[in-house]
Amino acid sequence: MKLDHSAAGVFTIAVTPFDPRGNVDHASVDRMTDFYIACGVSGMPILGVRGEAPKLDGEEALALTRQVVARAGATPIIVGVTAPGFAAMRALARGAMDVGAAGVMIAPPSHLRSDDQIIAYYRQAVEAIGDDVPFVVQDYPLTFQVVMTPKVIREIVRALPFCVMLKHEDWPGLEKISALRSFQADGSMRPISILCGNGGLFLDFEMERGADGAMTGYAFPDMLVDVVRLSRSGEREKAHDLFDAHLPLVRYEQQAGVGLAVRKYVLQKRGAIAFDSQRAPAGALSPAARAEIDYLLRRLARVDARATPSARVA
Amino acid sequence: MKLDHSAAGVFTIAVTPFDPRGNVDHASVDRMTDFYIACGVSGMPILGVRGEAPKLDGEEALALTRQVVARAGATPIIVGVTAPGFAAMRALARGAMDVGAAGVMIAPPSHLRSDDQIIAYYRQAVEAIGDDVPFVVQDYPLTFQVVMTPKVIREIVRALPFCVMLKHEDWPGLEKISALRSFQADGSMRPISILCGNGGLFLDFEMERGADGAMTGYAFPDMLVDVVRLSRSGEREKAHDLFDAHLPLVRYEQQAGVGLAVRKYVLQKRGAIAFDSQRAPAGALSPAARAEIDYLLRRLARVDARATPSARVA
Amino acid sequence: MKLDHSAAGVFTIAVTPFDPRGNVDHASVDRMTDFYIACGVSGMPILGVRGEAPKLDGEEALALTRQVVARAGATPIIVGVTAPGFAAMRALARGAMDVGAAGVMIAPPSHLRSDDQIIAYYRQAVEAIGDDVPFVVQDYPLTFQVVMTPKVIREIVRALPFCVMLKHEDWPGLEKISALRSFQADGSMRPISILCGNGGLFLDFEMERGADGAMTGYAFPDMLVDVVRLSRSGEREKAHDLFDAHLPLVRYEQQAGVGLAVRKYVLQKRGAIAFDSQRAPAGALSPAARAEIDYLLRRLARVDARATPSARVA
Amino acid sequence: MKLDHSAAGVFTIAVTPFDPRGNVDHASVDRMTDFYIACGVSGMPILGVRGEAPKLDGEEALALTRQVVARAGATPIIVGVTAPGFAAMRALARGAMDVGAAGVMIAPPSHLRSDDQIIAYYRQAVEAIGDDVPFVVQDYPLTFQVVMTPKVIREIVRALPFCVMLKHEDWPGLEKISALRSFQADGSMRPISILCGNGGLFLDFEMERGADGAMTGYAFPDMLVDVVRLSRSGEREKAHDLFDAHLPLVRYEQQAGVGLAVRKYVLQKRGAIAFDSQRAPAGALSPAARAEIDYLLRRLARVDARATPSARVA
Repeated sequence: MKLDHSAAGVFTIAVTPFDPRGNVDHASVDRMTDFYIACGVSGMPILGVRGEAPKLDGEEALALTRQVVARAGATPIIVGVTAPGFAAMRALARGAMDVGAAGVMIAPPSHLRSDDQIIAYYRQAVEAIGDDVPFVVQDYPLTFQVVMTPKVIREIVRALPFCVMLKHEDWPGLEKISALRSFQADGSMRPISILCGNGGLFLDFEMERGADGAMTGYAFPDMLVDVVRLSRSGEREKAHDLFDAHLPLVRYEQQAGVGLAVRKYVLQKRGAIAFDSQRAPAGALSPAARAEIDYLLRRLARVDARATPSARVA
Repeated sequence: MKLDHSAAGVFTIAVTPFDPRGNVDHASVDRMTDFYIACGVSGMPILGVRGEAPKLDGEEALALTRQVVARAGATPIIVGVTAPGFAAMRALARGAMDVGAAGVMIAPPSHLRSDDQIIAYYRQAVEAIGDDVPFVVQDYPLTFQVVMTPKVIREIVRALPFCVMLKHEDWPGLEKISALRSFQADGSMRPISILCGNGGLFLDFEMERGADGAMTGYAFPDMLVDVVRLSRSGEREKAHDLFDAHLPLVRYEQQAGVGLAVRKYVLQKRGAIAFDSQRAPAGALSPAARAEIDYLLRRLARVDARATPSARVA
Repeated sequence: MKLDHSAAGVFTIAVTPFDPRGNVDHASVDRMTDFYIACGVSGMPILGVRGEAPKLDGEEALALTRQVVARAGATPIIVGVTAPGFAAMRALARGAMDVGAAGVMIAPPSHLRSDDQIIAYYRQAVEAIGDDVPFVVQDYPLTFQVVMTPKVIREIVRALPFCVMLKHEDWPGLEKISALRSFQADGSMRPISILCGNGGLFLDFEMERGADGAMTGYAFPDMLVDVVRLSRSGEREKAHDLFDAHLPLVRYEQQAGVGLAVRKYVLQKRGAIAFDSQRAPAGALSPAARAEIDYLLRRLARVDARATPSARVA
Repeated sequence: MKLDHSAAGVFTIAVTPFDPRGNVDHASVDRMTDFYIACGVSGMPILGVRGEAPKLDGEEALALTRQVVARAGATPIIVGVTAPGFAAMRALARGAMDVGAAGVMIAPPSHLRSDDQIIAYYRQAVEAIGDDVPFVVQDYPLTFQVVMTPKVIREIVRALPFCVMLKHEDWPGLEKISALRSFQADGSMRPISILCGNGGLFLDFEMERGADGAMTGYAFPDMLVDVVRLSRSGEREKAHDLFDAHLPLVRYEQQAGVGLAVRKYVLQKRGAIAFDSQRAPAGALSPAARAEIDYLLRRLARVDARATPSARVA
C-alpha cells in the first residue's frame, strides 16, 4: 500500500540494530519492529539520518528494507533515499518500492540556496526515482542548511503529485505549519500530511498548530502516540502533562552528536534491541552520560510507568 | 572591578529595551537592571547576540553601557564587543572599560576553520583591545559555525592571561565541560570560569559536570539563580524539579528566530521592561504564539509562584 | 552628483593606504586618487572587501571618504557600507552621502538563504539608509555564500527605485549578465548599470555579454580602462590581446588570501602609494611570492609598457 | 602496480563519456583512454568531482573502472571513492583495487572543522578501506569547506603509511607547497607526491614551488605534460609562454558550474570522445558560451598547433 496524504499518527524513525562487531543484528531488527508496532506507531521510516544509513552498503540497505517490510505487515515503511547522486537514489528507491516500501524520503543537498534550485532539485529527483513513488520532503534547515519557505514547499507540492508528506523539522517552525495549513484552507495547495521531527521537542504545540503527528525516533514512541492521541481528542492538559514529563529526556536525546547513542541505550534498556552498538565510526557514551540517562529514567518512572525497569510495552 | 576566573552564579544576558518607536527606552534600562539584580544575578553581559547589539550604533552602545554600569553598582557588567573588524572591537572595548565595564566578550567570526586560525584570531583580538582587558571566549558552534576543541580552548587560555571565562554553548557540550575541568585537575590549564549559555537548556547537568553557573537570558533569571544554588549545595532533586518545571518555557524561548520576542514578551509581563518592542528589523509574535506562551505561563504558575501575574521579584 | 544607472567604464576598488605603523597614510590617499584618475577610471568605490574597511573605525571611515571625495572632484565615489547591523550601515551611509559620496554599496549577510529573505534584506537596508541614497547590490556568492537569481535581482530593482547598479561577481556569471539584459529587453526590468568584479578574471567576455564596465581593483586599472574602451568600440582582437597579456597577473592577484598584498605591492611599485602595508591583521608576501610577482611584471613589460619600471601613468 | 610517493607528471582527471541518452559510452571510454595516454599522461584518476561519479551507481562505477584499467595497461588508475559513508567507500575501494586500480582518492566531508576531526576522519577511512590501499588526500577548501593546515597534512602522512599523495588544490596554495616541502627537508615528514589541481590555474608557479606535477582534467593534457616537462628541465620562459597561451581557456574551463560542459565540448572537438553529453542533471552550454569557446580555440590555434581543427594528438 502506497503512502498518501492521509497519513497521520506517529511514524517512528527506526534505528538500525548492530551487534558489537558491527554486523546488522537481524534478530533485533524483528524485535525492534515488533516493539515499535506494539507502541502503536502508524508507520516506520528506516535509513534516516539517525538510522546510520550511510554506514550500510547498497545490499545491506535493501536487505534491511526487505526484512522490516516483511515483519511490519500492514504498517507502512518509508525508506530514506537521500544520496549524493541520483543514480544511488534511484537504485535504492526502486529497490525499496520493489520489496514493498510505502514511499521514500528525500532531503535536499546542503549546497542548494535559491528557491528555484530547491524546486529544480525535487523535480530532478522525481525524474530519477520515477513519478509513481510517493515521497516525503524532509525540511530540516538546522542540519541541511537549506531553507524552504512555505511558498517553495507549496510549489513542490503543486508540481509533483507524488509529494504526499512533509517531514517538518524547521526550527522554529510553528508558524510554518500554520502557513501551510492556511494554503490548504485557501485552496492554493492540496492537502499533504505534516509529520514533525526535530526529536519531538515541539510536538505539543505542533499538534495544536495542525500537524498530523510525529516523525521522530524518541525512545518512547508510545509516549508520542499518546500525546498525538490526547492532542487530537482535545485533552490538552493531559497531552502537555505527559509531554512535559518526558521533555527532560527528549531534550537530552536531541543532542546532535550523542543523541543516537542515548536513543539506542534507552531502547536496549526497554528491550527493543539486544545491543546499543553503533557501526563505526561511532561515539560512545561516557560513564557520566550513562548515569545522567539513568537518572532521567528514574525521575521519569515516577510519573510514567513505561520508564520503570519491569514495564515493557507488550 | 575587573572580571576574573572566580566568577560564578548567574550572569544574565540583558536585553536592550526599546520603546515602540525604536528608541532605546532608558527608563526601562534602569528598571531592567534593578529587576535582574533583584533576581539575584551575579553579573550582566550586555550587547550580546540577543541584546540586539548590531542594531545600535557606536554611541548608543557606549551610552547603554554607561547607564547599566552606573545603575548596577557592584554587579559586574560584561560587554559584547564582537565586531567584523578589530577597529570597531577595539573602540567598543576600550570605551566600555573606560566607563566601568568588568570585561568583554568575543565570539569568533564564522570563517575560522583550523585550530591555528582560531588561536591566532584571539591573539589578534587581544592585540587590538589591549592585554589588560579581561575577556570571555564565546564558544557557540551552532550559531558561529566555529568548532573549538578543548585543546584549542586550553591553548587560548595558556597564551592569553586575560582570558578568564568561557561562555560555553557547544551542543552537545557536557563532555567538553568535563574535559576542561580535567585539564585543570591535571595542571595543564589554569582555572577559568565556565558559565553556560544555550538558553539554559542543559543547565541542570552542566552544573553537575562542573560549570560555575549560567550565562543566558531566560526570562526567569531568578529560577536560574535557584537552580545554580540548589545544585551547588547538593540538593539535586530540588534543582531538577525546579528546572524541569521551567523546561517547557526554556525550550520555547530557545527557538532561534523568535526567542528574543518570547523573552521580551515575558519580561514585559513580569514588569522588567515597559515594552516588548524590538528595533527593526524584528519579527513579531503571532497571536497564536502569544497564546502559547500565556498557556505555558499558566501551567508554570501552578508550580512556581514567580510565574503568577501578581508575583513580582522585588 | 548622485550615481545613476547610466554609470559605465571602470570603477576601481580603491585600496586603503597605510603607513608601516598601521596609520592611514593620508599623503598616499591623495596620490592614489590622482593615480586612479590619471588611469582614466570613471569612479572609485572605497571601503570595499579589499579596502580593509573592517579595520577602520567609524571616524576613520568617514575621514577617508571626505578626503577621497574632495580630491576626486567630479569622479563619483561609492562607499561600501556593508555592516553587521543596520545602525552602523545607516550611520556610515548618511555620513558618506553628507560629505559628497555618489552612492553606497551593500553586500548581503551570509546567513540569507531563500529568495524572500534576500529581497526583504534589501528592503530593510533601504529603510535604514533612507530611500534617497543610490545603492549598488554586490552579488558575490563565492565569498558571501548568498545566491541571487536573476529573478531576485529583478525583484530588488523593481521594489527599490534607488537600486541603480549591480556589482556582478557571480562565478560563473556570463549567463547571468545575458539574463539580466534580456529582462531589460523584454521590458520586465528597468535598466541598471552592471559592472563586473571578480578580480576582472572574465572581463573580456563580460563586456561582450553586455556589462557596462568593470568594478575591481586590479593594480593596472589603466589596462581595464583600455579593455573596456576597445571592447565597446568593437575592437575585439585588440581587447583580448591586451587582456590576455595581463591575465597571468590578474589571476595571481585574485588569490583570496594574499590578493590584497599582491595588489598593494604592485601599486607601490607603480608609485600609486608609498607603502604596501596593510593594517593588522595582515599576511605578508613571502620572498618567493615577491619574486613571482616581479617575474610576472617583467614578462608583462615586454608587451605592455605600463609594466616597465620607468613608465608611469601620468 | 600500486601507487607510491614517487608518482609525478600529469594525472589527468578523466571525464566519464555518456551518449546523448545518458548511457555510459563505452566506445568513447576506450577512445578517451587512448587519447589521454597519447597525450603523455602519467596516470588517470577516474570518478572524481568532474567525473560525474555521483551519477553512476555502484555497478556502473566498477564496470567503468574495469574498462579503463584494462585499456590503460601500465598507466596507473586512481579511483575517487569519496562517499557519504564508509560502507560505500569501502565497497568501491575494495572493488576498484580488485580490478587493478593503483590507488584511491578521498576528499573530506564538508562538516569537518577542527584539526582532530580531519585527522580522525582519515584514520577511520583507512580502517574502512583497509591499510593496504594507497590513497590520495584531496585538499580542496574552496569546494569542500574543509581547511587542512600543512601540520594536519603532516599528521595524516605520519599516521597513515599508505597516504602517498596530496591532490593540492588549496587556493591560494603556493605557500602550502613550500611548507610541505620544508617538512620533508627538515625530516619531519616522509616524502609524498604533490600533484596540483584547481583546474591548473597556478600550475606554472606550483611546479616552481616543488610540485611533482598536475592532477586536473583540462582539455589539453598534452599542454600540461609539456609545461611540467619544461618546468622540470629548467626551461622557465618556455614553460610560462606555453602556459600563458592556454590560460584564457584554462580560466574559462575552471568556472565551477559550467566547467565540465566546457571540457567535454573541447574534448569532443579534439576527437577524444564522441559526444559532449552529461548524464542528467546537467546544464547545457548556451550558444553564446559555445561561440566564446570557439573563439578562444581559434586564438589558441595561432600559438599552439594542437588547437587547430586538423591537428590531433595521435
